[in-house]
Amino acid sequence: LEKALACGAVDEVSLDLEETVHQADTAVFCTPVDLLAEQILSVAPSCNPGTLLTDAGSTKSDLVRRLAKTKFPAGVAFVGSHPLAGSEKRGVEHADPDLFIGRVTVVTKTADTEPAAVEKVTTFWQSLGSRVIIMDPDEHDRALAFTSHLPHLVAAALVDVLTPDLIPLTATGFRDTTRVAAGDPSIWTGIFLQNRDAVLAGLERLSENLDRFRQALDSSDRSAIDQLLSHAKKVREGLDQ
Amino acid sequence: LEKALACGAVDEVSLDLEETVHQADTAVFCTPVDLLAEQILSVAPSCNPGTLLTDAGSTKSDLVRRLAKTKFPAGVAFVGSHPLAGSEKRGVEHADPDLFIGRVTVVTKTADTEPAAVEKVTTFWQSLGSRVIIMDPDEHDRALAFTSHLPHLVAAALVDVLTPDLIPLTATGFRDTTRVAAGDPSIWTGIFLQNRDAVLAGLERLSENLDRFRQALDSSDRSAIDQLLSHAKKVREGLDQ
Repeated sequence: LEKALACGAVDEVSLDLEETVHQADTAVFCTPVDLLAEQILSVAPSCNPGTLLTDAGSTKSDLVRRLAKTKFPAGVAFVGSHPLAGSEKRGVEHADPDLFIGRVTVVTKTADTEPAAVEKVTTFWQSLGSRVIIMDPDEHDRALAFTSHLPHLVAAALVDVLTPDLIPLTATGFRDTTRVAAGDPSIWTGIFLQNRDAVLAGLERLSENLDRFRQALDSSDRSAIDQLLSHAKKVREGLDQ
Repeated sequence: LEKALACGAVDEVSLDLEETVHQADTAVFCTPVDLLAEQILSVAPSCNPGTLLTDAGSTKSDLVRRLAKTKFPAGVAFVGSHPLAGSEKRGVEHADPDLFIGRVTVVTKTADTEPAAVEKVTTFWQSLGSRVIIMDPDEHDRALAFTSHLPHLVAAALVDVLTPDLIPLTATGFRDTTRVAAGDPSIWTGIFLQNRDAVLAGLERLSENLDRFRQALDSSDRSAIDQLLSHAKKVREGLDQ
């Protein structure tokens, strides 16, 4: 907290969560996903009317479902958020005031969510430069299992094929492909547990794709390998457009 | 070729391979790996004594073995090279005069390789700023299967889980993890075919690692997931030191 103050990343710091949120108009909870519900529930009763509570967690379904069961004080609302921005690095020394510019933030909406609160959260993220996509939390979790959680798992599984003698023979390809595996396990373990079924479904789909490569290699099928690589290249290039 | 001349990447161009190599002291062949042997064999007879032939291919075993069977003219030598540098981009507009600075180049050596030629090739890559590692070609191919060819295959298999609706929900994690999948299939198909067995062995090892994740997820085993991620983080961070 002292470092964050010193570098100007924040104006004030406090260790008293309840008192801090009591003073806030908008509070964004940024703890690991498996701690979010408990923390938000602990402060909600002492919030002033008009307080908006949101978060920055990578899974949404469990959190939104748990908080939907709770009666918040009048005028206090929770809406789930997930800004798709950040890196594998941790600590205020890696903070970036432009982090959200041009990046997508998912804001969750269910039958229970107050439309005015969704609008307020949307405006909040847009004010930081983010593009907002409104989604159902279950749909969010199924999508992010494929676009974020599976890549993390794959990067971790890939980096673990490395023995010390191979390290000098890694180049940018290996490093890029495995970069996210340096992410904090205390954050990622919670994400995997909360989104277990969708991640397992993603893993199943990946295994099918790997099997196609295995079969093509096994039979030295030039045309099949070329087709698999050409399709992947086309999809990958689509991401940069 | 006209673009390469215009931007100053080269001093001269030619479409006559034999005549060009005849005039050269050192010739570096940079075609896809499955064309290298044929091209080098086609020009070797007309080389002047003292000519050094090398290449920049990602597989070495097949090439070095094939060329070792050939009687080159007196004073003409071939030594295999693999600079571990480059990107998924293609074309002279992506050329970089500093590409090799600080990067590893593997130079191959077997019982048949002339020590003087190894030394000359080593000096050549060092003059471009590269660090040279001398290796047996089979050993090179087994290592690169894990550090380069497997990551490419995994990136391609991963990018193929993407359906169009998921594209807006990809962030830097997905993009980095799959970046190499945009590489040219006409280069990579040859690499996979030439290094088939070692790549299949890498795929087997990766599948074991993925299975460990699958089992840990299946049983919602927090401690097992945390251990897998923590180990991966440690290995990944070791690459940046």
